Amino acid sequence: MTYILDKYKDIDEIKNMSSEELNIFSQEIRQFLINSVSKTGGHLASNLGVVELTLSLYKVFNFRKDKLIWDVGHQSYVHKILTGRIKYFSKLRKYGGISGFPKREESYFDIFDTGHSSTSISAGLGISRARDLNGDNYEVVSVIGDGALTGGMAYEALNDLGYSKTKMIIILNDNQMSISKNVGGMSKYLNKIRIDPAYNKFKQEVNNTLRKTNIGVGVANSLQKIKDGFKQLFIPGMLFEDMGIKYLGPIDGHNINELVQVLNLAKNIKGPVLVHIITRKGKGYDFAEKNPNKFHGIGPFDCDSGEICSIKGLTYSKVFGKEMINLAKENKKIVAVTAAMPDGTGLNNFAEKFPKRFFDVGIAEQHAVTLCAGMATQGIKPVFAVYSTFLQRAYDQVLHDVCIQKLPVIFAIDRAGIVGEDGETHQGIFDLSYLTQMPNMTVMSPKCIEELVYMLRWAVNDNKGPIAIRYPRGVDNGDIKLKPLKDFFRGKWEIIQKEGNIAIIASGKMVQTAILVKEKLLKLNIKTTIINAQFIKPIDKDIIKRLVNENYKIITLEDNILHGALGSSILEYVNTLECKHNILTLGYKDKFVTQGNVDLLYKLHGLDVEGVFQSILKFI
Amino acid sequence: MTYILDKYKDIDEIKNMSSEELNIFSQEIRQFLINSVSKTGGHLASNLGVVELTLSLYKVFNFRKDKLIWDVGHQSYVHKILTGRIKYFSKLRKYGGISGFPKREESYFDIFDTGHSSTSISAGLGISRARDLNGDNYEVVSVIGDGALTGGMAYEALNDLGYSKTKMIIILNDNQMSISKNVGGMSKYLNKIRIDPAYNKFKQEVNNTLRKTNIGVGVANSLQKIKDGFKQLFIPGMLFEDMGIKYLGPIDGHNINELVQVLNLAKNIKGPVLVHIITRKGKGYDFAEKNPNKFHGIGPFDCDSGEICSIKGLTYSKVFGKEMINLAKENKKIVAVTAAMPDGTGLNNFAEKFPKRFFDVGIAEQHAVTLCAGMATQGIKPVFAVYSTFLQRAYDQVLHDVCIQKLPVIFAIDRAGIVGEDGETHQGIFDLSYLTQMPNMTVMSPKCIEELVYMLRWAVNDNKGPIAIRYPRGVDNGDIKLKPLKDFFRGKWEIIQKEGNIAIIASGKMVQTAILVKEKLLKLNIKTTIINAQFIKPIDKDIIKRLVNENYKIITLEDNILHGALGSSILEYVNTLECKHNILTLGYKDKFVTQGNVDLLYKLHGLDVEGVFQSILKFI
Repeated sequence: MTYILDKYKDIDEIKNMSSEELNIFSQEIRQFLINSVSKTGGHLASNLGVVELTLSLYKVFNFRKDKLIWDVGHQSYVHKILTGRIKYFSKLRKYGGISGFPKREESYFDIFDTGHSSTSISAGLGISRARDLNGDNYEVVSVIGDGALTGGMAYEALNDLGYSKTKMIIILNDNQMSISKNVGGMSKYLNKIRIDPAYNKFKQEVNNTLRKTNIGVGVANSLQKIKDGFKQLFIPGMLFEDMGIKYLGPIDGHNINELVQVLNLAKNIKGPVLVHIITRKGKGYDFAEKNPNKFHGIGPFDCDSGEICSIKGLTYSKVFGKEMINLAKENKKIVAVTAAMPDGTGLNNFAEKFPKRFFDVGIAEQHAVTLCAGMATQGIKPVFAVYSTFLQRAYDQVLHDVCIQKLPVIFAIDRAGIVGEDGETHQGIFDLSYLTQMPNMTVMSPKCIEELVYMLRWAVNDNKGPIAIRYPRGVDNGDIKLKPLKDFFRGKWEIIQKEGNIAIIASGKMVQTAILVKEKLLKLNIKTTIINAQFIKPIDKDIIKRLVNENYKIITLEDNILHGALGSSILEYVNTLECKHNILTLGYKDKFVTQGNVDLLYKLHGLDVEGVFQSILKFI
Repeated sequence: MTYILDKYKDIDEIKNMSSEELNIFSQEIRQFLINSVSKTGGHLASNLGVVELTLSLYKVFNFRKDKLIWDVGHQSYVHKILTGRIKYFSKLRKYGGISGFPKREESYFDIFDTGHSSTSISAGLGISRARDLNGDNYEVVSVIGDGALTGGMAYEALNDLGYSKTKMIIILNDNQMSISKNVGGMSKYLNKIRIDPAYNKFKQEVNNTLRKTNIGVGVANSLQKIKDGFKQLFIPGMLFEDMGIKYLGPIDGHNINELVQVLNLAKNIKGPVLVHIITRKGKGYDFAEKNPNKFHGIGPFDCDSGEICSIKGLTYSKVFGKEMINLAKENKKIVAVTAAMPDGTGLNNFAEKFPKRFFDVGIAEQHAVTLCAGMATQGIKPVFAVYSTFLQRAYDQVLHDVCIQKLPVIFAIDRAGIVGEDGETHQGIFDLSYLTQMPNMTVMSPKCIEELVYMLRWAVNDNKGPIAIRYPRGVDNGDIKLKPLKDFFRGKWEIIQKEGNIAIIASGKMVQTAILVKEKLLKLNIKTTIINAQFIKPIDKDIIKRLVNENYKIITLEDNILHGALGSSILEYVNTLECKHNILTLGYKDKFVTQGNVDLLYKLHGLDVEGVFQSILKFI
């Protein structure tokens, strides 16, 4: 039973709420979030941090015409609650349910789809310019975290914005975190603002003026006067002011009165303005405040104990992290690099054990890759652990800085293939295509977790050029036990079983699916050859040629879009052979893969055991 | 006849040169550059701007152990002259000759291959960290232009550097230019430093100290004291200092004495330091000083008159720029976006005619794309004109911000296919692969310049989703006159001529090659069907099916790597048909394409008329 939330219908009501009511509403929303996410899983800590901010935004702006853009977007739950979607929260992030990110298709109030970091200022500036060109009149507000501000794209946008002087409002939601603790010179700088007494003195002055003056253009002018007077002092946000963007703050992001005041002020300033607010990730839920990292993206959990329900087995990430420690002990040249994902990529323990050989560069995949390239020129062996979807950000750096120079950088590509609930923006289904098109690149994938260990070991000792190892989210299929390969020969595949005249060439975890399909086929007395394409590039031409010559029916199976990936490479090669041959290529068609449970998505795309089995039956 | 250059052998000599000798040497190098580049073509203005800087660097540092990294790298000619490569300048940028960019394979002194912008701080930081890990002891110097500093990647690196406090030296070579005039808040900020009397006062103080003190750690300490004392004033470079990077400057980049002093100072400062030097692009050659844009990358020219020898015909870029003006007159929603390439992309006149509808965002392709996405959500029709190779930087933004939301952004992709002399880093031979793998993307290419006009018109009126139009550098083949298509139907190809049982499916300018091949085949009485694949995605399945059913011998021809491009898409489709069919796919193999004359490179890769002719003869 709640006072406000149960009766809440419409964003217009917020306009009439008193501060007291807004504070009560905040607590009710918070409680709802904790209860709801404890059941469905999702992003919790970041949403708990922006409850007051979101309410204050709706108090000050009219988002029936004003535009609100959430950077990354995982902190948009409160916004979704306020805009009529509370009833769908039981299907949050599920197939057919509401997304964990803003989606224009989902609501009028979702202005721009997000998912990857640091895009909101660019999108907001685009919308602001469109407004001016169209002769419209509305406010554009982009909310960006201090973590997202480490992405170079955000800086590119600030640079353009400060120069063009287009009116838009940036809310810098500073919680000193990316998913993990935030890093970088900018982060240090923001911290300096937060703790320096001179800055606080300035803040005092602003507050005094705010009290004395009516909100409006008058205030903006007074503020300018104060600022000019302060020229003799460090001005907080000088860095932004230097780039041509007015700075307001820092402001307590959980104090609705202060927030409303500063947002009104920002609204009345001409040109671009940045409002710096300080929030606490996980605010109001003890377990999340203490461990915001754990409660960033989380599965279902117990509200009272904060314990996560699903106890996971040994994940690919964990095994990767563990082996990195082993390898680093043996070889002093090995270092690990992450772009703000020490936890997700399994590198936390490595970071503790080898702090000088661990580099968290912030949400900066481009820099991460070229940093690795630089290190590799001097005989250091960098391993960049990154999610498949985020490596997309560094396509050019992989091609231009690593592949052209053929530098032995290792890319440990986690969350490859379908990742599930995060949806279109996070599925790792493009990497096989964009990596195999790069000359000099070797692309590998282990058929099981244990094979990842040996593959990683082989890769760091290879030294012949860049190697990408892609592996999926989560754990292995418990039903099968596969013998890992312990040694590797570039472009040579493993024939796991040679039988009959049907051959399934599978890569990565799809080998496990292939084995189960083989067993199903065997029950129909159909014998199948199973090949582990542990190298997606280069492909094993000898094996393919032999299969073609022996007139095998060939099926390829991969957790990637079809165009330009493994099956496609095989087709390209077979096409050059004299004989003509049809191949069944299984993977994702030319469409984005939506959110949903991984197993369900496999099924929907015909890549579960039954789907593959049926496709093969039809094919042969 | 020169005093120094003729006798110059070795970088060690620079150590012993007096300021006077260095100034004479500068003039001699300048004269050599002007003469040499006037014959070969190449990058002139940027190199004329860094003569004194390069000499000063060699005076102060020992690049037998210290490492020098050139951002972008087109300003490395002086460095190449000083490191034993003057004798190869007659083959500058030619096939088999020296590169116009640093190449590790070319010289011990080339530390990191560059070409694309904004990579040098990342690479330099990687090398610095490798040095520390390896227990080595040397200086790392990255030279980056103010233009390159608009790229987000540079900021990502600064952010990491300022945080980690690794020792490295950044030279900010500030000439107020990218290729064209530099833009952005950062650029404004640098300009403020240059002209503000307070800054100059500070500079005076530093200079006084330099005069009073011996160069060394002492100076660094004194400098810190001055800075602390100046806390009450604006400090130049505060923005960099805020990020944790010491700032020195601004310094006249043509004054060798000042340069040597400040570089010595930088050498002795602990941690990261940025030296801000002011140079003039084209310095010392009147025509280039007045028109640095024209003399950025240039063909052979007459030294005395500054006139460029080769008079170019109507280029794709020019026609694109002209048609953009026509379209903009008709449709107020059309805007043009460039990432620091108003000239190269042909948008200069557009910028003059429609200043409010033209956006130069700096060297910031990522931001450019998402900016366009934002505009497109509000009914504006953005056309992002960009070189193929540079769009690689925005792979993720195209996929994540444009394609997922299916926003009608137009990508006008210039310099697609082989571009020639700039070599590996600049060939536009990957776009067909990386664009066709993106769901919701339409990819087109005109067979001739005139077709570009109609294609662009069709694309801006389509509104169904993102469309990429790729077209080559330069002009059409003068020997053939093709009739342009005036209307387009998504996924429908043009059958230019239907004859015989051989079909060449070509895309873009390769259609012109196909026509010439057809004529050659006709002389052997072999008749050929010619198909213009004006859509690379989606492909025309009806035509393909018909060709396959009628048992045509199919040849595909494209100016792109083979894997994952047009030929590959056709193979993937043909594979799903019942009948079995071999296809000859012509394009680039899985290798980077080196520098050289475009026609020569076509020949070497078998994509000239003779090469294609021979391949087809062999195939049929």
